[in-house]
Amino acid sequence: MKPKISVLTLAVSNLENAVAFYRDGLGFPCKGILGEEFEGTETAPAGALGFFQLTNELILALYPRSELAKDANLPSAPESSLEFSIGYLADSKEDVDHIIDQAKSAGATLTDAPHERPWGIYSGYFKDPDGHLWEIIWNPSM
Amino acid sequence: MKPKISVLTLAVSNLENAVAFYRDGLGFPCKGILGEEFEGTETAPAGALGFFQLTNELILALYPRSELAKDANLPSAPESSLEFSIGYLADSKEDVDHIIDQAKSAGATLTDAPHERPWGIYSGYFKDPDGHLWEIIWNPSM
Repeated sequence: MKPKISVLTLAVSNLENAVAFYRDGLGFPCKGILGEEFEGTETAPAGALGFFQLTNELILALYPRSELAKDANLPSAPESSLEFSIGYLADSKEDVDHIIDQAKSAGATLTDAPHERPWGIYSGYFKDPDGHLWEIIWNPSM
Repeated sequence: MKPKISVLTLAVSNLENAVAFYRDGLGFPCKGILGEEFEGTETAPAGALGFFQLTNELILALYPRSELAKDANLPSAPESSLEFSIGYLADSKEDVDHIIDQAKSAGATLTDAPHERPWGIYSGYFKDPDGHLWEIIWNPSM
């Protein structure tokens, strides 16, 4: 596992308002709201999130709290570990599995085992010992 | 304000355990626990935190939840906005003030007005509309 953070995802109550704050209020360059074609269901997460390309190759993402809960397979009740997630872009599916195993060995709690997600990525989630949420991602299009 | 995140600070319950997780468990290169000379008081935050230099110039910091509460001038009761803070390294004191003003105009809530802190930085904190905590920092030594 390389020492890097690729994406910082903030759980938000209202996506439009949150995008407006960062795009219009702080002036961050917004790639728009992506993934709206994935509508979701009661149990499957919708895909829509706001994307901002930051300097030094970091991405800031805004994602509804309810959808992050579903995507990470965690209760939708307010919980600190859902306030954000830290994304790590791995090199392959095998790399995702390896990193998840490494994290579990280190004391992390797996919340959602790695699997294919509808938007074309393969990822799993774990919580660090303080409940901070990491998503380890293989994205074949990046 | 540039579109960047310089530091990601995670609030932790036990600093030694948290450092061990990231350093020994995940293998992140640790600069050690810095700032231990600032012991803090009932109301003033202690300075000790764990520092990790990540790729693309991002720093991951681990800081006791109780001390982050004091440093950001927020209640020490569990609160989502204390689960982490996003650090932004500004160009000058004036830049800190300007960015804080910009954030307030955009709808942010100031929690701690910019001032000199004992470890030689000038910073202020605001919460974004969802309670996510930002510290805008001028550090003359960086």
